[in-house]
Amino acid sequence: MTITITAFERSPDGGRGLARDTRVRWALEEAGQPYEVRLVSFPALKQPAHLAVNPFGQIPTYEEEGLALFETGSIVLHIAQCHKGLLPDDADGRARAITWMFAAVNTVEPPILELQNARLLEGDKSWTAERLPLVKDRCRDRLKQLSAYLGDREWLDGAFSAGDLMMASVLLRLRSSGLLDEYANLAAYVARGEARPAYKRAFAAQLAINAPK
Amino acid sequence: MTITITAFERSPDGGRGLARDTRVRWALEEAGQPYEVRLVSFPALKQPAHLAVNPFGQIPTYEEEGLALFETGSIVLHIAQCHKGLLPDDADGRARAITWMFAAVNTVEPPILELQNARLLEGDKSWTAERLPLVKDRCRDRLKQLSAYLGDREWLDGAFSAGDLMMASVLLRLRSSGLLDEYANLAAYVARGEARPAYKRAFAAQLAINAPK
Repeated sequence: MTITITAFERSPDGGRGLARDTRVRWALEEAGQPYEVRLVSFPALKQPAHLAVNPFGQIPTYEEEGLALFETGSIVLHIAQCHKGLLPDDADGRARAITWMFAAVNTVEPPILELQNARLLEGDKSWTAERLPLVKDRCRDRLKQLSAYLGDREWLDGAFSAGDLMMASVLLRLRSSGLLDEYANLAAYVARGEARPAYKRAFAAQLAINAPK
Repeated sequence: MTITITAFERSPDGGRGLARDTRVRWALEEAGQPYEVRLVSFPALKQPAHLAVNPFGQIPTYEEEGLALFETGSIVLHIAQCHKGLLPDDADGRARAITWMFAAVNTVEPPILELQNARLLEGDKSWTAERLPLVKDRCRDRLKQLSAYLGDREWLDGAFSAGDLMMASVLLRLRSSGLLDEYANLAAYVARGEARPAYKRAFAAQLAINAPK
């Protein structure tokens, strides 16, 4: 069975690993699954061929025999449910790991996306300098709660899981803002994620495509 | 096995069904599962007893024998995986329904949350009148794509699923803005969700607590 994912032909982040295909690559590496990559240009994202797989015109998508998925969280969960390495064996532990996946994308990521929008889409607006501190504080609200929960745990709930993969990936987007480093245990948590061999392989694979030439 | 969820002692929306416990109530009603509700005051959300179940101090939470979960998406998925009525029987269909759950919370909901923040948290700011149209357009970008995909489908992918439950719930938050009604097929889709007996029971249950007295 061949797994094919899509990624940007050229990621706007220049290879920092912040495009969402890195999350799926990481999951596939943790699960020990080989995969192929189809690169998609920005214009092609909005064309019928790609919209047929993802109606929102985003990457990554995931295709295997007879099945096409989109949404990073859903793809990572599918990989985690089909292979060993990303979810605990017991049903309750699996449910808790999935809770952390949703917490990553629906509680922690929204203020981070808002900060990204403030910078990328409103960077030239008259209000942005005054508004940015408010948006950063909304990120800090979540980081403070997550940091208090994490304490000196190595991972969010027992062994490394798809919940950690998603949470660390979401937090990585904050590094350039300096906010992540305000919470030493969260910065160390993300660094533990990055130190995993599977993450390193995923990062290197996307860098090979996106590194400035 | 007793299921206990948490909800606001008094929802800020005054019973319009937009607090996230309505999503979980709806799922439990679709699955035919009775449940109990523990009401939590705003101060109590930030106290250790509640933070032990949800480190982010939000509702809803979900407790059954020996298992405590938070995050609406995760709770709805858990209910859907444990009971009939919210996911197709075949593995591929289940994976696609879960894709729509993640699309609801991680692609469609973030701009809606941004619009809500612009109104509730920045309503008194000098920039808000000029900025609101930009934020609304970010919502429209997603609605337009979703509307194009939905076309004249009844539900997102075959029979009603947890993906529809989450998507309709997310879209409901937009009704008061007028944006939902700009897309007739999306407005009709949400209305089909609201017409389901399970939704009506869920809505009535939260209204009984939150209706203005």
